[in-house]
Amino acid sequence: MHVLVIGAAGMVGRKLVARIVAEGGIGGRKVDTLSLVDVVAPQMPAGFGGRAWAADLSAPGEAARMLAGRPDIVFHLAAIVSGEAEADFDKGYRINLDGTRLLFEAIRAEGMKQPYAPRVVFTSSIAVFGAPFPDAIGDEFFTTPLTSYGTQKAIGELLLADYSRRGIFDGVGIRLPTICIRPGAPNKAASGFFSSILREPLVGQPAVLPVPDTVMHWHASPRAAVGFLLHAATLDTAPLGARRNLTMPGLAATVAEQIEALRRVAGEKAVALIRREPDETIGRIVAGWPRRFDAKRAESLGFTAETTFDEIIRVHVEDELGGKVA
Amino acid sequence: MHVLVIGAAGMVGRKLVARIVAEGGIGGRKVDTLSLVDVVAPQMPAGFGGRAWAADLSAPGEAARMLAGRPDIVFHLAAIVSGEAEADFDKGYRINLDGTRLLFEAIRAEGMKQPYAPRVVFTSSIAVFGAPFPDAIGDEFFTTPLTSYGTQKAIGELLLADYSRRGIFDGVGIRLPTICIRPGAPNKAASGFFSSILREPLVGQPAVLPVPDTVMHWHASPRAAVGFLLHAATLDTAPLGARRNLTMPGLAATVAEQIEALRRVAGEKAVALIRREPDETIGRIVAGWPRRFDAKRAESLGFTAETTFDEIIRVHVEDELGGKVA
Repeated sequence: MHVLVIGAAGMVGRKLVARIVAEGGIGGRKVDTLSLVDVVAPQMPAGFGGRAWAADLSAPGEAARMLAGRPDIVFHLAAIVSGEAEADFDKGYRINLDGTRLLFEAIRAEGMKQPYAPRVVFTSSIAVFGAPFPDAIGDEFFTTPLTSYGTQKAIGELLLADYSRRGIFDGVGIRLPTICIRPGAPNKAASGFFSSILREPLVGQPAVLPVPDTVMHWHASPRAAVGFLLHAATLDTAPLGARRNLTMPGLAATVAEQIEALRRVAGEKAVALIRREPDETIGRIVAGWPRRFDAKRAESLGFTAETTFDEIIRVHVEDELGGKVA
Repeated sequence: MHVLVIGAAGMVGRKLVARIVAEGGIGGRKVDTLSLVDVVAPQMPAGFGGRAWAADLSAPGEAARMLAGRPDIVFHLAAIVSGEAEADFDKGYRINLDGTRLLFEAIRAEGMKQPYAPRVVFTSSIAVFGAPFPDAIGDEFFTTPLTSYGTQKAIGELLLADYSRRGIFDGVGIRLPTICIRPGAPNKAASGFFSSILREPLVGQPAVLPVPDTVMHWHASPRAAVGFLLHAATLDTAPLGARRNLTMPGLAATVAEQIEALRRVAGEKAVALIRREPDETIGRIVAGWPRRFDAKRAESLGFTAETTFDEIIRVHVEDELGGKVA
């Protein structure tokens, strides 16, 4: 199989490629060719045909070039993230909306030359939802995003469903929970603390908690996210019908529950590294976020995530820290 | 006030303009200038400043020209209808998606010159919903359209909400029920029979009923539709928050109930003009359509529609037949 990954240099993209390389394929089907694209050139793994290159999905002709090899599976992970899409209106719409549409149109153009309808896996986000929410957000709850990023993802979902309905491709949109623990350096995202209050203490570094212990949010590990992508790439789409976009399973946990899990995995000395420093701005932003979902549909289709925060922490310790806690 | 109507030559557009002319304003505020646009030049009423002209909203520079006079209220009614948007993929997306976005961007560009944030009233449709449905579709039900038209309207709704959230304009999206009784000649729309089984017998002409009596659908009169538009143009949008798109109230009625109302208004001889000629294709299409809504939110905001089918028929008799039944 030939697999195209757009956004292959990002955190999830790199882990996805690493997993495909490690397993030699997806869902038991051998992958021999990889096309890897991002705004910076992704690393090309040895032993595969294809290539890795830098490209802006929204630039003329780029989407067509990505599709020229007629990949069997297209992972579309490329996006301007929430904060940047909010700060730069034009850039967010250009990449997240126009880029997505150009990609879908390039697939359609390929199919007009000769029949072609690849599997397309599109990463959406729980940012398609906006408060106020019910206690648990069900699969039929409406999408009223409170950011331009969430708006662009919700539009991508609608396009994905319409192009799939018309048989232009065979699409699955997956709404990722907040990824926790995000590896790497702390970033300025308002959601950053959900990861940093665990990630930094696990390596003996201090971390700041800007919200009360009672804040609840919806999480899944990077490993679970890669699992969602691979499952979406191979599942039977017939049961989806026209409803191609799925809220992924995850784990609803309060900050207090996150900290208790840290205590169990890494002990009291790790917990002691968390400094409480309330930040009203972050508190207000987080208050508008979803807390909990009832992701029945995705679960019934075989998508799985962690069920305890201990597990989420252990995944990080295994995948990022070589199994060792400081 | 200066009012721009895009789609002013269509059935609803013409009735909207006629009502503004008859009342001299909207919601008690005087209208002195009208800008009327459609793909064919609308008629310009006497006694108003402004002009009427033909333009394609999706053509370069046209949206900017429509906005140049900085109208206080923008009615965006222009659309490629359902059947055509399904048959012509590119045209549907060009007019219904790109056209809408170009309009919204032209408003943003005006606002960058100097502060400007008009009221924008966007006609969406119950086609944003797709089966399977609950018995009554609530205000928080998700939008999973089964046509490209419905997809384009759902995207327009998302854009409207995001541009409004950012203060670029002050938007209200209204999801119209099926308009019944549609005046004019029978057309080839799958929904056409809902109107023709009443409209033709009311003038002594035969009509064909292609579905069983038990089919239920969601209706409002053209007069009610104009009422929705005018109310949306003047209501206080503060209570809407970020949720700018509203399912309009309407009347859920079975075909049998429609026919009983016809019998009460126009007698047995009118009913006798309806010929039952089952059409499986139409039956299948209609089976995927919404039957009934629970439009609580719009009702609480003061939108009103007919509550009996007798009333819907009487509106037609008054507005189209000079009060006379054949």
